Amino acid sequence: MSEFRQDPLSGRWAIIGSERAGRPNEFVEQAMRYSSAACPFCAGNESATPPAIVQYPSSGPWKVRVIPNKYPAVAPDPAPALSQRVSDRTAGRARGHLFPFASAPGEGVHEVIVESARHVVSLTDLTPDEAALVFRSYRDRLRSLRADGRCRYVQIFKNVGPAAGASIEHAHSQLIGMPQVPETIERELQRCELAQRQSGRPLLETILEAEVATGERLVAQTSDFIAHCPWASRFAYQVSIAPRKQQASFEALEDSEMGKAARFICDIIGRMERALGRPAYNLFLYTEPFDSHRCDHYHWHIEIFPRVTKTAGFEWSTDCFINPVPPELAAETLRAAEHVD
Amino acid sequence: MSEFRQDPLSGRWAIIGSERAGRPNEFVEQAMRYSSAACPFCAGNESATPPAIVQYPSSGPWKVRVIPNKYPAVAPDPAPALSQRVSDRTAGRARGHLFPFASAPGEGVHEVIVESARHVVSLTDLTPDEAALVFRSYRDRLRSLRADGRCRYVQIFKNVGPAAGASIEHAHSQLIGMPQVPETIERELQRCELAQRQSGRPLLETILEAEVATGERLVAQTSDFIAHCPWASRFAYQVSIAPRKQQASFEALEDSEMGKAARFICDIIGRMERALGRPAYNLFLYTEPFDSHRCDHYHWHIEIFPRVTKTAGFEWSTDCFINPVPPELAAETLRAAEHVD
Repeated sequence: MSEFRQDPLSGRWAIIGSERAGRPNEFVEQAMRYSSAACPFCAGNESATPPAIVQYPSSGPWKVRVIPNKYPAVAPDPAPALSQRVSDRTAGRARGHLFPFASAPGEGVHEVIVESARHVVSLTDLTPDEAALVFRSYRDRLRSLRADGRCRYVQIFKNVGPAAGASIEHAHSQLIGMPQVPETIERELQRCELAQRQSGRPLLETILEAEVATGERLVAQTSDFIAHCPWASRFAYQVSIAPRKQQASFEALEDSEMGKAARFICDIIGRMERALGRPAYNLFLYTEPFDSHRCDHYHWHIEIFPRVTKTAGFEWSTDCFINPVPPELAAETLRAAEHVD
Repeated sequence: MSEFRQDPLSGRWAIIGSERAGRPNEFVEQAMRYSSAACPFCAGNESATPPAIVQYPSSGPWKVRVIPNKYPAVAPDPAPALSQRVSDRTAGRARGHLFPFASAPGEGVHEVIVESARHVVSLTDLTPDEAALVFRSYRDRLRSLRADGRCRYVQIFKNVGPAAGASIEHAHSQLIGMPQVPETIERELQRCELAQRQSGRPLLETILEAEVATGERLVAQTSDFIAHCPWASRFAYQVSIAPRKQQASFEALEDSEMGKAARFICDIIGRMERALGRPAYNLFLYTEPFDSHRCDHYHWHIEIFPRVTKTAGFEWSTDCFINPVPPELAAETLRAAEHVD
């Protein structure tokens, strides 16, 4: 029902109109704080959501459950209504102009990953084994959707708290699979390619080596992963998590590595929750597109944007963010917020 | 004290660290709702702000007052502290890598335009003559800063309501003048150039002609100005206002045109306030950079982003916005919200 449209002036794409207009929380400030009896994501209330695509473990009571989004932004077979209506219009309007109002059907998949059968609000409320299942579900969905062949890119993301756009409190992630690669990823790939040609090294390897060497923006590191507050952080207390060694896709993680990845990511989220008082945040995973042959020097990475500062007119107009908290100071705060038993 | 920094992976610039860390409202949800006795922007309280750069009328009680921002994101002579510290660091870290952590001093100007001597919260609370002075101050500051020679681009913007990042309720606009042209503007200029070469016509002229012809995204029009909800609106109820005839800079508006411009813009804001119940919003003006010779086919335009939907993980990661309200529907609503005496 939705469609992708490109703004002729900026070149940016948007997803216009969708089932989401009907979702419960539209335009409402507070996220739904269902009691667990009423929460559509709690065990026992599975009938409130579409049937599961996959669940973990595969038999017995589930701990992580992947379902289609009930109010999808894109859909596998978009109803022709809006697209058709629009192309009729466009046809009627095109009078020899070279310049079009470009659009494409809102094709794709939109899924929800329910992170626990219990009514918890944070990944840090899960046991390490439970958290590992969440990240395993990320990997498995990426692998399945790659095999499926309809998407070129899958964006996995997480909205926590009303200020971060969450409409339901129960801990969950989402993924949107699309027939095209978003410009943000395309651009990172291009910059990684360029840096590789110029320096002979993967860009993120160079960045991480510099971050480890100076240490001043470093939050935590293990032999496998590094977390740091990026040099040009757009948001106060923004954190980037990446594998130490070049690894283009999150799909490459083995079962045996999931526990370590989950513990590291939850450690970082825990530091942020302690330092900032459980702020609203967005988390997302950048990983290689399915059809790219240019990813030998890309690193998957996870970005966390705490929503403690507001995005205002200057940011929207220039795309240059004003971040009052230097990442060196943010990293110092997050290093000090280590969990102590 | 602040500095511009470029993210090596995305190429995006941010303004890091600044006097703004000390401003009253940082991290606080509600905008300051001073009584007029305590409001730093009300007549009588001028000593609470830096001295005026200019005020209107130039003698007698002021109606519009332009002042330096007390908590500037950039400054004419940035203290060397952060920049120096950072370049020392960078020098120490550069070990033959081609890839730098790029930065530039946080040079620029950051001003506030107080839109009324009375404690009003919206441009629509002003008389037409008062509103005309606000837009005249926009134009005059652009002309002065062009003559001044230190900035290449001046971004004028307005934050209304806490959800739009406003820290003070009293109606005001801001401007930030910068030594470089933001990528968003650069990109529009490039796309306008390309369209001009391909079609022989200014891109915005083509867009506006198509919008007037179909009418379905049109909000209002006069012989001088057109307001429409853009084809690929990123935000629900987003509106774009532009002059009907090609005019690259807002500076070109004559005194005699200010009243018409102000009435038109206030009409659009009024429609939005009536239709959506005085929502938070951001407004900004795109106009030609000072040193560009490529602007013969650019149109200045004003964009209004009502903040009734939330920006979440998908938007931050892909820069592709999900807008549940098709602009055709938004325009219909805003057309119907015309002011009737």
